[in-house]
Amino acid sequence: MNPETFTVDGDRLTFELAELGKIGLGDDGGYYREAFSQADLDGRTLVEGFMEEAGMTVTRDAAFNTVGRYAGENDFLPPIVIGSHTDTVPCGGNYDGVLGVLSGIALVRALHSNGTRLKHPLEVINFSGEEAVSPGGTFGSRVMTGHFEEGLLDQIVYSDETFRELLERVGIIIENLSTIERKKGSVAAYVELHIEQGGNLDADGISVGVVDGIVGFRRYRLVFSGRANHAGTTPMDRRDDALVKAARFVVGVKETAEKFGIVGTVGTLEVTPGAPNVIPGSVELSFEMRGLDDSVIDQAQERLTSFSRELDASFEKFSHKPPIISNKVIVAALQEGCRRAQLEYVVMPSGAGHDANLMATICPVAMLFVPNKDGISHSKEEYCTPEACVNGANALLQGIIELDLKI
Amino acid sequence: MNPETFTVDGDRLTFELAELGKIGLGDDGGYYREAFSQADLDGRTLVEGFMEEAGMTVTRDAAFNTVGRYAGENDFLPPIVIGSHTDTVPCGGNYDGVLGVLSGIALVRALHSNGTRLKHPLEVINFSGEEAVSPGGTFGSRVMTGHFEEGLLDQIVYSDETFRELLERVGIIIENLSTIERKKGSVAAYVELHIEQGGNLDADGISVGVVDGIVGFRRYRLVFSGRANHAGTTPMDRRDDALVKAARFVVGVKETAEKFGIVGTVGTLEVTPGAPNVIPGSVELSFEMRGLDDSVIDQAQERLTSFSRELDASFEKFSHKPPIISNKVIVAALQEGCRRAQLEYVVMPSGAGHDANLMATICPVAMLFVPNKDGISHSKEEYCTPEACVNGANALLQGIIELDLKI
Repeated sequence: MNPETFTVDGDRLTFELAELGKIGLGDDGGYYREAFSQADLDGRTLVEGFMEEAGMTVTRDAAFNTVGRYAGENDFLPPIVIGSHTDTVPCGGNYDGVLGVLSGIALVRALHSNGTRLKHPLEVINFSGEEAVSPGGTFGSRVMTGHFEEGLLDQIVYSDETFRELLERVGIIIENLSTIERKKGSVAAYVELHIEQGGNLDADGISVGVVDGIVGFRRYRLVFSGRANHAGTTPMDRRDDALVKAARFVVGVKETAEKFGIVGTVGTLEVTPGAPNVIPGSVELSFEMRGLDDSVIDQAQERLTSFSRELDASFEKFSHKPPIISNKVIVAALQEGCRRAQLEYVVMPSGAGHDANLMATICPVAMLFVPNKDGISHSKEEYCTPEACVNGANALLQGIIELDLKI
Repeated sequence: MNPETFTVDGDRLTFELAELGKIGLGDDGGYYREAFSQADLDGRTLVEGFMEEAGMTVTRDAAFNTVGRYAGENDFLPPIVIGSHTDTVPCGGNYDGVLGVLSGIALVRALHSNGTRLKHPLEVINFSGEEAVSPGGTFGSRVMTGHFEEGLLDQIVYSDETFRELLERVGIIIENLSTIERKKGSVAAYVELHIEQGGNLDADGISVGVVDGIVGFRRYRLVFSGRANHAGTTPMDRRDDALVKAARFVVGVKETAEKFGIVGTVGTLEVTPGAPNVIPGSVELSFEMRGLDDSVIDQAQERLTSFSRELDASFEKFSHKPPIISNKVIVAALQEGCRRAQLEYVVMPSGAGHDANLMATICPVAMLFVPNKDGISHSKEEYCTPEACVNGANALLQGIIELDLKI
């Protein structure tokens, strides 16, 4: 049988989503499979069973990443890796991460049930600790790519123990973590299917997004200084109102983002002293910009730095992650996969970070997005139709079959 | 001797300021003569002694207002009243209110030491509880003018007792309060000298402000609704950012106030959810406008109401005090007083409220302002030069001498 005609077992994928959906479901309808919680570990064990049933050899590594391996015709080639995660934010949904892991399993099942192997070995990885505990997220993929900072071990998580204590309590041996590091070139390609977490596909009624890059982001902190003064006795022309300056900057961030085709957001803003009858003396705000082209963000930053100087604000960048550009060969293969699966697709960036960001440091990567309702994620309202899930898995299946031949 | 040549005893005024300045002075350099505290009562007793020494008959009324009376040539005429207060905000200064009471005493001393009486009886009133305890300020003048709301008695003040308990503890008999109410027409004129509490006189180097009115103010609460969403995955053209709308409104308040020649201030603003990576879903802000002409504030309100509708905001007025227009005869007399005292003056509005607001409900009123350093008040940094204090008292003295002849 021609692999180009293979499809995933949609009913089985839907069943596995439902089975995992029985674990960590709170009374409020949200999921509580927080990283390394009992529910997270129970979910991981369940998914390991699914991997074995699908025909994979399953290992849980020293960082509690589950690696399901499906041998290739040439098993000495570096593997094609399909990964994501099954842990959730507190009161999260059952699709973010989950769908990527189960789609990978569905893909292997489709090959295995047809008695087919690809040229490359396949690995489906259920990364551990992708969602943020206090020291930040993407724990498992950080360890695997050599980007875990040991200093984080001493931070407090879930407000009652250190991250080290949490890891040791669940059985992770810290000194063994480094044994799972993979070197550059040891993975042929990394592909992650994920819900979009934005409303674009859903609003436009498109089945699949082929991700041409993961936006970089920079976060900034600004302090606007004015002069706190009596709101009644100070004429307008004798005021130095920090909030008026900050308000101009908020509008400026929006206009700058629009001009440069990126996104820019002022998410926090605090007014001091914050009394109805006092002219604001100081305003602190944080904002971020995200885009696929670092040089464009450079230009936007230059413009806003200059604007902040006009407004007498202090301007401090406190976080900077460069964009990840998808590998062109993988993107082309995934597009071909969509065409074969007869699914309408669009090429688009990812506005959020994923395990793929870390994997990009050791191998070529790309991602697939499926529409989730209204773009809502990290919420109990997070939802994907069964059809959208199956469509995504079929695009992944055909994309990987194509990719295997092209690399 | 011609009363037009009288001057106040500046050294004595400076001495009395210094004596009162020994009461309620905190280790941090601020004054703590909060309404009905022991320091406030001690200050009141000290000032009652000053009144007697200056030649007045002194009564502490049922609301603990101190009334110092200096008989007139025609003692059956309604009195000219000069008033203010000696209580302070926590960590306040020793001029706000204080200077008005001590200037009134200086005025009477100047008449008395010259063996002169005016046609009208004079009263110097040290009002009680002008600065806000929890149920609001201007207690004494409210009671005197029949504007005290009994419901306030049950509110908690200074966080440990009700206002009623506080008043009873210091010896005020609640049922006697109504006995001190004065009817419309029972006072010939009310004049209050006060520090400007704005930086205009100080910046312009002008000795006296003759107040042609006390601005009215209105306070509003607005809620801007948007849609909280992921700051990375939501393109600019699919956003509904509550903070961008609120920022436009903040700028709009400034522009509107400038256009209409009033003051407008957004003093508080809160962003929800207030996370760096989430588009603000909701912003609540409060703003106020103040001006001397209610119909102008009406127009500004109309413009901003309409703007808030364009921005999909809810718009609620929660406070509205009409302006007080000074009596023209008093204003003219005070201007003449400045000229006789050879002091440069300017006619200006008061941006803050005073006991004069309440007195205006029963009699004609006007005020005099003296410059305070940088316009700072309600602060331990509050400061007036001795010269500025004496200048103000001389303007008051000559203004009242003139007024007595004109009414």
